[in-house]
Amino acid sequence: MARPDKRPLNKMRPTTIKKNVNRHAEGSVLIQVGNTHVLCTASVEERVPPFLRDKNQGWVTAEYSMLPRSTHTRTPRESSKGKVSGRTQEIQRLIGRSLRTVVDLENLGERTIWIDCDVLQADGGTRTASITGSFVALCLALKNLKKKKILNTIPIRDFVAATSVGIYDGKHILDLNYDEDSTASVDFNVVRTGAGKFIEIQGTAERDPFSEKDLSALLKLADKGIQELIAMQKKVIGPL
Amino acid sequence: MARPDKRPLNKMRPTTIKKNVNRHAEGSVLIQVGNTHVLCTASVEERVPPFLRDKNQGWVTAEYSMLPRSTHTRTPRESSKGKVSGRTQEIQRLIGRSLRTVVDLENLGERTIWIDCDVLQADGGTRTASITGSFVALCLALKNLKKKKILNTIPIRDFVAATSVGIYDGKHILDLNYDEDSTASVDFNVVRTGAGKFIEIQGTAERDPFSEKDLSALLKLADKGIQELIAMQKKVIGPL
Amino acid sequence: MARPDKRPLNKMRPTTIKKNVNRHAEGSVLIQVGNTHVLCTASVEERVPPFLRDKNQGWVTAEYSMLPRSTHTRTPRESSKGKVSGRTQEIQRLIGRSLRTVVDLENLGERTIWIDCDVLQADGGTRTASITGSFVALCLALKNLKKKKILNTIPIRDFVAATSVGIYDGKHILDLNYDEDSTASVDFNVVRTGAGKFIEIQGTAERDPFSEKDLSALLKLADKGIQELIAMQKKVIGPL
Amino acid sequence: MARPDKRPLNKMRPTTIKKNVNRHAEGSVLIQVGNTHVLCTASVEERVPPFLRDKNQGWVTAEYSMLPRSTHTRTPRESSKGKVSGRTQEIQRLIGRSLRTVVDLENLGERTIWIDCDVLQADGGTRTASITGSFVALCLALKNLKKKKILNTIPIRDFVAATSVGIYDGKHILDLNYDEDSTASVDFNVVRTGAGKFIEIQGTAERDPFSEKDLSALLKLADKGIQELIAMQKKVIGPL
Amino acid sequence: MARPDKRPLNKMRPTTIKKNVNRHAEGSVLIQVGNTHVLCTASVEERVPPFLRDKNQGWVTAEYSMLPRSTHTRTPRESSKGKVSGRTQEIQRLIGRSLRTVVDLENLGERTIWIDCDVLQADGGTRTASITGSFVALCLALKNLKKKKILNTIPIRDFVAATSVGIYDGKHILDLNYDEDSTASVDFNVVRTGAGKFIEIQGTAERDPFSEKDLSALLKLADKGIQELIAMQKKVIGPL
Amino acid sequence: MARPDKRPLNKMRPTTIKKNVNRHAEGSVLIQVGNTHVLCTASVEERVPPFLRDKNQGWVTAEYSMLPRSTHTRTPRESSKGKVSGRTQEIQRLIGRSLRTVVDLENLGERTIWIDCDVLQADGGTRTASITGSFVALCLALKNLKKKKILNTIPIRDFVAATSVGIYDGKHILDLNYDEDSTASVDFNVVRTGAGKFIEIQGTAERDPFSEKDLSALLKLADKGIQELIAMQKKVIGPL
Repeated sequence: MARPDKRPLNKMRPTTIKKNVNRHAEGSVLIQVGNTHVLCTASVEERVPPFLRDKNQGWVTAEYSMLPRSTHTRTPRESSKGKVSGRTQEIQRLIGRSLRTVVDLENLGERTIWIDCDVLQADGGTRTASITGSFVALCLALKNLKKKKILNTIPIRDFVAATSVGIYDGKHILDLNYDEDSTASVDFNVVRTGAGKFIEIQGTAERDPFSEKDLSALLKLADKGIQELIAMQKKVIGPL
Repeated sequence: MARPDKRPLNKMRPTTIKKNVNRHAEGSVLIQVGNTHVLCTASVEERVPPFLRDKNQGWVTAEYSMLPRSTHTRTPRESSKGKVSGRTQEIQRLIGRSLRTVVDLENLGERTIWIDCDVLQADGGTRTASITGSFVALCLALKNLKKKKILNTIPIRDFVAATSVGIYDGKHILDLNYDEDSTASVDFNVVRTGAGKFIEIQGTAERDPFSEKDLSALLKLADKGIQELIAMQKKVIGPL
Repeated sequence: MARPDKRPLNKMRPTTIKKNVNRHAEGSVLIQVGNTHVLCTASVEERVPPFLRDKNQGWVTAEYSMLPRSTHTRTPRESSKGKVSGRTQEIQRLIGRSLRTVVDLENLGERTIWIDCDVLQADGGTRTASITGSFVALCLALKNLKKKKILNTIPIRDFVAATSVGIYDGKHILDLNYDEDSTASVDFNVVRTGAGKFIEIQGTAERDPFSEKDLSALLKLADKGIQELIAMQKKVIGPL
Repeated sequence: MARPDKRPLNKMRPTTIKKNVNRHAEGSVLIQVGNTHVLCTASVEERVPPFLRDKNQGWVTAEYSMLPRSTHTRTPRESSKGKVSGRTQEIQRLIGRSLRTVVDLENLGERTIWIDCDVLQADGGTRTASITGSFVALCLALKNLKKKKILNTIPIRDFVAATSVGIYDGKHILDLNYDEDSTASVDFNVVRTGAGKFIEIQGTAERDPFSEKDLSALLKLADKGIQELIAMQKKVIGPL
Repeated sequence: MARPDKRPLNKMRPTTIKKNVNRHAEGSVLIQVGNTHVLCTASVEERVPPFLRDKNQGWVTAEYSMLPRSTHTRTPRESSKGKVSGRTQEIQRLIGRSLRTVVDLENLGERTIWIDCDVLQADGGTRTASITGSFVALCLALKNLKKKKILNTIPIRDFVAATSVGIYDGKHILDLNYDEDSTASVDFNVVRTGAGKFIEIQGTAERDPFSEKDLSALLKLADKGIQELIAMQKKVIGPL
Repeated sequence: MARPDKRPLNKMRPTTIKKNVNRHAEGSVLIQVGNTHVLCTASVEERVPPFLRDKNQGWVTAEYSMLPRSTHTRTPRESSKGKVSGRTQEIQRLIGRSLRTVVDLENLGERTIWIDCDVLQADGGTRTASITGSFVALCLALKNLKKKKILNTIPIRDFVAATSVGIYDGKHILDLNYDEDSTASVDFNVVRTGAGKFIEIQGTAERDPFSEKDLSALLKLADKGIQELIAMQKKVIGPL
């Protein structure tokens, strides 16, 4: 059985990252991974949340949301329902954690970078696209701060990108789209650095538990995709 | 004193309406009125809200939201705050009411069209751009239903578009951007049909009450803008 | 077709404004416009909201609510539902805005006047009755502050009153009651000053869009009603 | 030390119950106990809550609210705060329970009587005034149902009224106003029937625990007040 | 008709109070009254709520909750429903009030004792068990503060315990379990001090109003139970 | 540097699982992993959530909560704050997903098993203790259903247990307590079956990204702990 969109098992969807798509944000990109489109902005606020007051460090936090008709059928807004779903909270915590691991928060100074990931169109992999795109938006905002002499150096220790891998019809595949994601028996989100280390591995057996051998093969596949994404990020961001 | 962006008093900002920007929605447009960008989708749901059960008619309803960084400084999400603001509710009621006035709800059949207006970037006039754009998205969705033979005719009685006018530095101006809107002494939102009739007039003195003569001049100015918008809508929608 | 209560087209319902109906509030009135009865209180708080700190000015804000059985059939309380409806928010924003336009906020000093409009019985026109009544409550509270030498002058620039007009069975009518309001094809709320200028015009076509000629006739009709209301306000308030 | 308003220890405040004050409600009264004024309405709904479906009985339930400026200084609305306070819930549960004890719910039929007690002005004793007043509103609504032949008999087993007693400056007093209530060391709410039996006794030591002798004297005092209130109720309600 | 569990009318269920069941809390007990099991902790916070700032006194406040499966059938969590029920609020207000009456808040100093009563298993009488248990947890926390020399004396004026009494099948009974509570015609919660004075009496006729003679007999029965409970508390707490 | 509690790097804390601790629940255990104590109950409801209606299958869902004083300092209740935190939602989704992977939902029949994990005392590893404990509670409930002949077979495909591993002071350690968890540079939660397959791997670099070699060593360590836990589960559950 071939993949629904005929892709080879180890191939990512066509991916583009377009920068400076929002005239107000300090950093912004539109990332398109196949039919998944996410608008990522990085906003600078010159203060830190209460729990970091007087600790001489900055903060990076993320929010994530899907437009109601980003999905195949319309999804009610979380603002209308009056609460943020568990899924949304899980995703925004993941994005924030992933970015903070490579940011030198002390050298960021007492300011907060707000990352907003708004999914304009969804076709699987919105959380990993959000991480990959928002790392670029974050770097663009930091370059802006350096250009304005607010920062002396860019407080970034390494690159970060993310993709998904999974077991679909018994085969290991890279970068699942929505159809694949819905029927995969195992589903992994992998966040990795430019230096090839892991920031986060979230592997879930949706139906059939998986073996150590599967794990090892899947992580290798993810690595291929992440290296391609990081190459693309470098081109878009330019010299740091 | 000239307008901040040097426009003649009676000139609208450069405006474009791009259609079919979302692969899931039955109808969708991205409307750009100067730096105000709104993504409008129309989604078809094959049922009506409870208060219309068994009344042999359809419904059109609208939701509106601003992305957090659509604004000059970041605005917290309404989903995080757990409630929809009064301003948002006022705007979504206005959009829904404006569209329903020209839709033949009986001939729409027992279905709901959900209009979603998501502001990607804001520079004044987001509510009027939302009305103008979502009328196009609505028509595209209805054409889709007709093409699929779900509808026999397009249940639209007339075109609808909207713009703002105001008194700025003592002068009557058309299509206020954010800077003008913030300092105008009088601010009008006008919703009008293709046949030149009014659907809604909302005029507010922000500081100085206005006279009947002002009212009459402002409505004339709005009319000029709305005619231009409706010409543009016709081109984008094509034959109904 | 006559009006349901046999009134001439250009006649308001019997209206009374009774003052000092609450022993705690700095200003209070019970306004009765036909069967619409609204209790309006003005409460003085010696501080301003956070966004006005250190700006040397005061603030006027309004809240509006209907008792559950003010309506023909019982309406659930907004406190029980845990949220304030869009309609309520629209109305309280309108009341606040209308009053602020005629108050000299700088001379009010750093204090807030809270206006509360609680509808004891509803029969159409509750928002316009609230504006007319709360202007009186506001003036009474300000006179109180002057009497206590907290203010030197009454910081009021002009009078404000409001009424509704509409198109009912094809005819232009003044001061719609509930039955008329439910079936009118066009419905206007008009807020006007003693000097005859407009503060707010909200005209909505409920079904049939209206022409400029309608607009002009309706505003004239509203003017007649508002002049009568302002004459009544003057009597109740006494010398400012 | 005399009572703040010079009343004898065993004397209630001047009390009046005015009926039919709301043209929509099936039963309504305005009860004034001194400066405490409560508007009580009884609304008939022709269905029962889900937990009583198909049990061949009716239901009586109560809601209670204070207008923001019923109090000495303005109290924020519970609708604005988005939740009903513990105090409000305690009071509405007490009112509902007290009334249900004397209603023959089987003979009421499958319908709900909604009692709404809205405090227009508060000076202590709002919950007991609400019980006394809403019993009258309830009876008026039931008489209405009988008059319309919806009920054959009035499903009421006995009268109900309530008052407060307490220990103030070491003395046993009847019907505490706000000043007394705030400083009393012991505070009792007593709900009693026409036949002299208790429905509810809630006695709370605010500071000093009380003895059995106090208890006995206080209940006797309450009895005097409640008999006066029931005599008044009988006059207002007329023959059942 | 005998009691469902064959107990004599005037006998309490087997009761135990186990102390120091939580290693983090300053004071903690597990109280078991028959099959009703409540975990009570007392936590010390070195500040007071805003309304007590700069008043040179401390505060005691209580929260109460039932685990979802403490009940015969599972009860949904209040956190999932997003609001605390009226019943819960009534109970936590009662617990806090009862404890505060015997605490010398001035000598407690500017700190708050948070009482948490979490019902692990319920079989009637959870609120009275909570009061009896949390008084012990409170004393243990205060002894801890004295041991650490934060307090010089234990600011407790008297002991407090609570039980329920009622009229079941026409008979006066002590300490109602769930089956009895559900069918009792009259239900009393009594909170009393070691010196035999009342802190709170809450008597409710669930169906049949009760007489003064009933009241007197029920209070005597409650007294017997409370004396037994206080003897047990003294043993667990040890010298104060 | 040794572990704070002197344990060998590859040793779990003393662990016990006590069954039938709640008389109402169909299945219940108290699991104690060192000072982490979690009460797990399994409740049977004879219906499925709406999204599973008429699909001939059952459902398993989980809720998780910490008592306010389960933590070192008191944590405010989620019910008082009116919303469930992101952390809580993440954990309850993880527990539910882990259990569902080994349950044969078709053979469970159209019923829901509600798992409630309430943390009585916390010292790190509450989510993994919850999974390990609630698997036992689930099996006990299912055995109950079989005993009552409601089920013919126990619809369980394999055992499930969970533990944590991490990198602490550069060393790989098993079963982190709170102190270790707070300072570990990498933190893994591993959910594994009796057959040695993975259900879920969640590995997070809190500060330093980790290598593939670390990953492999950590998973081996987790495996050791999980085998010990499953042996213990088997003893407590008895023959299935």
